[in-house]
Amino acid sequence: MTTEVTLRVAMTCGGCSGAVERIIKKMEGVEDYSVSLETQKVVVKGNLDPQAVLEAISKTGKKTEFWQ
Amino acid sequence: MTTEVTLRVAMTCGGCSGAVERIIKKMEGVEDYSVSLETQKVVVKGNLDPQAVLEAISKTGKKTEFWQ
Repeated sequence: MTTEVTLRVAMTCGGCSGAVERIIKKMEGVEDYSVSLETQKVVVKGNLDPQAVLEAISKTGKKTEFWQ
Repeated sequence: MTTEVTLRVAMTCGGCSGAVERIIKKMEGVEDYSVSLETQKVVVKGNLDPQAVLEAISKTGKKTEFWQ
């Protein structure tokens, strides 16, 4: 089953967004993703538990919340 | 027992160094720390396992290695 998880992640430079991308690439079950520094929007698609995605990205130390 | 762990962490902006600080503040056993964006040096002091500190900071998605 494919789930789409959309998050707002506080990123302020290309190092920030690159760090988020590296974490997503290490996650199991990811089929596709996008990370936008401009809009602060991170979308991850795949066989995923939304809460687990939120927690993994929170471990980057950046403020992370589900996109409203 | 107090251990001092010194790491080189790839940080490119204040958002990056702030993220590393937030992760260190959540670690147990930390007595003192410093994070320098300019020198890319992170020092953490306390009752700590150096490998665990390296792994926790690696989860920020930033390239992290022991300071040579």
